[in-house]
Amino acid sequence: MAAGCRIDALADAVSRAADGRLAFSLHGDASRRIRGVAPLQSAGGDQLSFLANPRYRGAVAESRAGAIVLTAADRQALFPEGAVVGATLIECANPYAWFAFAAQFLAPIGLPVPGVAAGAHVASGASVDPAARVDAGAVVESGASVGPRCWIGAGAYLGTGAQIGADTRLHPGARVLSSCVIGARGIVHSGAVIGSDGFGFAPLDGGWIKIPQTGRVVIGDDVEIGANTTIDRGAMGDTVIEDGVKLDNLIQVGHNCRIGANSVLAGCVGIAGSANIGRGCQIGGAAMIAGHLSIADGTLIGPGTLVSRTIATAGYYTGFFPLMTNRDWERNAAALRHLQQLRGRVRALEARLKDGGTGED
Amino acid sequence: MAAGCRIDALADAVSRAADGRLAFSLHGDASRRIRGVAPLQSAGGDQLSFLANPRYRGAVAESRAGAIVLTAADRQALFPEGAVVGATLIECANPYAWFAFAAQFLAPIGLPVPGVAAGAHVASGASVDPAARVDAGAVVESGASVGPRCWIGAGAYLGTGAQIGADTRLHPGARVLSSCVIGARGIVHSGAVIGSDGFGFAPLDGGWIKIPQTGRVVIGDDVEIGANTTIDRGAMGDTVIEDGVKLDNLIQVGHNCRIGANSVLAGCVGIAGSANIGRGCQIGGAAMIAGHLSIADGTLIGPGTLVSRTIATAGYYTGFFPLMTNRDWERNAAALRHLQQLRGRVRALEARLKDGGTGED
Amino acid sequence: MAAGCRIDALADAVSRAADGRLAFSLHGDASRRIRGVAPLQSAGGDQLSFLANPRYRGAVAESRAGAIVLTAADRQALFPEGAVVGATLIECANPYAWFAFAAQFLAPIGLPVPGVAAGAHVASGASVDPAARVDAGAVVESGASVGPRCWIGAGAYLGTGAQIGADTRLHPGARVLSSCVIGARGIVHSGAVIGSDGFGFAPLDGGWIKIPQTGRVVIGDDVEIGANTTIDRGAMGDTVIEDGVKLDNLIQVGHNCRIGANSVLAGCVGIAGSANIGRGCQIGGAAMIAGHLSIADGTLIGPGTLVSRTIATAGYYTGFFPLMTNRDWERNAAALRHLQQLRGRVRALEARLKDGGTGED
Repeated sequence: MAAGCRIDALADAVSRAADGRLAFSLHGDASRRIRGVAPLQSAGGDQLSFLANPRYRGAVAESRAGAIVLTAADRQALFPEGAVVGATLIECANPYAWFAFAAQFLAPIGLPVPGVAAGAHVASGASVDPAARVDAGAVVESGASVGPRCWIGAGAYLGTGAQIGADTRLHPGARVLSSCVIGARGIVHSGAVIGSDGFGFAPLDGGWIKIPQTGRVVIGDDVEIGANTTIDRGAMGDTVIEDGVKLDNLIQVGHNCRIGANSVLAGCVGIAGSANIGRGCQIGGAAMIAGHLSIADGTLIGPGTLVSRTIATAGYYTGFFPLMTNRDWERNAAALRHLQQLRGRVRALEARLKDGGTGED
Repeated sequence: MAAGCRIDALADAVSRAADGRLAFSLHGDASRRIRGVAPLQSAGGDQLSFLANPRYRGAVAESRAGAIVLTAADRQALFPEGAVVGATLIECANPYAWFAFAAQFLAPIGLPVPGVAAGAHVASGASVDPAARVDAGAVVESGASVGPRCWIGAGAYLGTGAQIGADTRLHPGARVLSSCVIGARGIVHSGAVIGSDGFGFAPLDGGWIKIPQTGRVVIGDDVEIGANTTIDRGAMGDTVIEDGVKLDNLIQVGHNCRIGANSVLAGCVGIAGSANIGRGCQIGGAAMIAGHLSIADGTLIGPGTLVSRTIATAGYYTGFFPLMTNRDWERNAAALRHLQQLRGRVRALEARLKDGGTGED
Repeated sequence: MAAGCRIDALADAVSRAADGRLAFSLHGDASRRIRGVAPLQSAGGDQLSFLANPRYRGAVAESRAGAIVLTAADRQALFPEGAVVGATLIECANPYAWFAFAAQFLAPIGLPVPGVAAGAHVASGASVDPAARVDAGAVVESGASVGPRCWIGAGAYLGTGAQIGADTRLHPGARVLSSCVIGARGIVHSGAVIGSDGFGFAPLDGGWIKIPQTGRVVIGDDVEIGANTTIDRGAMGDTVIEDGVKLDNLIQVGHNCRIGANSVLAGCVGIAGSANIGRGCQIGGAAMIAGHLSIADGTLIGPGTLVSRTIATAGYYTGFFPLMTNRDWERNAAALRHLQQLRGRVRALEARLKDGGTGED
């Protein structure tokens, strides 16, 4: 979109995409052309920027952005009646969402060029919609189904009987193994593996007998799965990722987990088998979720936190060792190794003082 | 196995697979046909289920499973003499192992269709057993050796001089790099990398000089390696994974590590270079093992635990910050930053009370 | 290099590679032939070894190595004037760096065989230097640029408009996505993903609106990136990895991060978006860096440490829960959950003693 578009046309596009979910108003020159997006600090006169956090109000004053999305409160604080305003202002209760829709319009992904590229391997017995694209080096196995306007990137893989819904995109090297299902408008980033075997073994005489992993991974609509993330298929029954879930890179999801709709998991999270994560949860980076537990809808988990028990009540939970200098850590860690005894010593002191504080043994 | 098989035939198959390691007895209708496996809660009359933990006895009473494997103690508790029993019962001291063998029989992987698929790249000078399968997009380099009944999945890679033993399966996109060796009956899941360079550099003038990584990864028989797991080759000498080891997804194994036979490592574990993990260890998810240390045979490590020193005595070790509300965490973490001082204050109180507890400064 | 080379020739090669950065002297038979490198414990008479840490002096006495690099101090301690010395000694203030250059010379990677292999897919409109190599199954998209003597391994991927500089090597299955840039002499290991979408969404009505990720990943010269590591492209602006950075396996780098020159990050590290890591930092394995913070040049971070705030002063920082037996952990973790109250109780005791230590409530 090198030519860009007028702000009023951009606003119309945002309205259509937001479909009634975003009220907003334009203030200033609506005929200005916008060609892209940029942060407040670096944006030029043909770029759109946004202010979502009042802490950064200072950056607005110095910004050369052509248009800025911001809240009514920020607009009033920054530009009281009569103030000279350089940028066109878009006032919206949710500036970041307005900005997101505008950025999507300004940098459209576009439809894939339909067809199967030379060097792609589509098995007879696979079903590839005529409006879908399969790139070089990709493999679509027999019985797999690729919906309209899907993109199967270079070297991506769709196993026997796997299905992906309309407008879903497998980036280069993404793999959806046999029988797994992805809904519409999904994004699977490079190197992600959907449907690897769950980790299940029965102990016998010091060795391990493999439990066949016969379930699937079933993924809803509008799900995004990060690069090199892995989601194991169910042992019996399925691993389920509900609509709107967003998984960052290098996440591990064990077999038979369920992740509720619109939950968001940051990078490097690990989830052991059969965990049941509610809807609308937000899990910080490198958090680890133990198996066979539940997390209530809407729960927030801090980064680096190990969730070792069910969380029945939504809230904000954390558990990581605080950062300190290594010298302080060595001392505090040594003391932590005897914290239980320290508590006992405090109890003894309390008891002694209750008895008269005479210092007797 | 849509037709399924009679319970007595299934029991014969388990006997053969267990090869004398599992004694068991059938109780009830041995002619019933079983077509698959399912959990107690959802199993139907043509499915096999199991009870391995007495805590779940309640699920047996409500189960509609056609056959259930369970211990003698559970059978006697649930079905005392004369009780009406719907399911055929298989009594076994190790119900989970019996179930595992039965499930393998009911969902057989089957032999790969021999041959090199169109779109596979097998270098002249590679040795591929006629009973092995190489799928589309896979690459087998010169000097590589593929044993009988192996499966090289789509897009998988076998480097120069790499060897994989009989019945080993490389899932789509698994990579075994040059000179690395895998034994028989191995399973390497999608995206795993065997034989990447170890992380070794000599510091010089603020920069880093690469140490060539000239060793191999040598993997025994019956090893399973999870999706996107990485195992580095040795710097000098080899990285060694002994027989029967099971590695989950997204595990990192540094150069020159040794993992003893039948050890099991859960997802997201990281192992730094030259760590020596004993046999029969169980390492919880996201545990991290520092380099140049040893862990005794049979050690259990809890999830999220950093092993920073040698563990000479087998046992169960843990070390992660407990989960709490973020508010409690903020307070406790703040106190933890001064734990050493708190210990000093308790000592001072103790000293003062020994001196008579008069409260003098 | 089966024939090996004389120690004096090897020393000349090291001198050239070190380019004046390493002074050293030879002691003993400089005509001995060296064919490879090995640790002190296992080296034979045609192998080179080194002693970098005085703690391991004992191993030198027992070593059969043909040549040993060591410091002047170690040489004098081990071989005072007149002592009988078996190995040829190379005295150098930085034995490990000398050894690194020698090992590179003894195990040269060699230039790739120029050309595009059968089964590689190079789009018209891609620019591949005639001295570069593209292996089977690799894909080079239109507008991509491959410098001289580069190696694009089997199944590797170079997206539209991506550029890699001279002598850079993409191992099998490494992926450099559209528009990303890598400098000269880079190494990208198998399964690494450079340029996946950053993780950015605007919340709206309980769901998430994707922020297009329109920036690039820009990587300097002499950077090494580990297997299955992921580096996200910038949302707006670029993610930047400066010259000489070394990233181990399974690292996640979020969008718009900057990693300063010559920093070294061990395996399983995670870095959230917009973190700014200084030059010459060393980050231990599985450390996690929160987003939107800075770390001073030359900072050391211990393994398993969560960096949750800016580090303005270089130093050595740590924060992980110390290892203990599970029984001790259960007790200490329980006490840790009430550490803030324990501190309060100690304060109360102190106050009481100040008041006379009478033990009144």
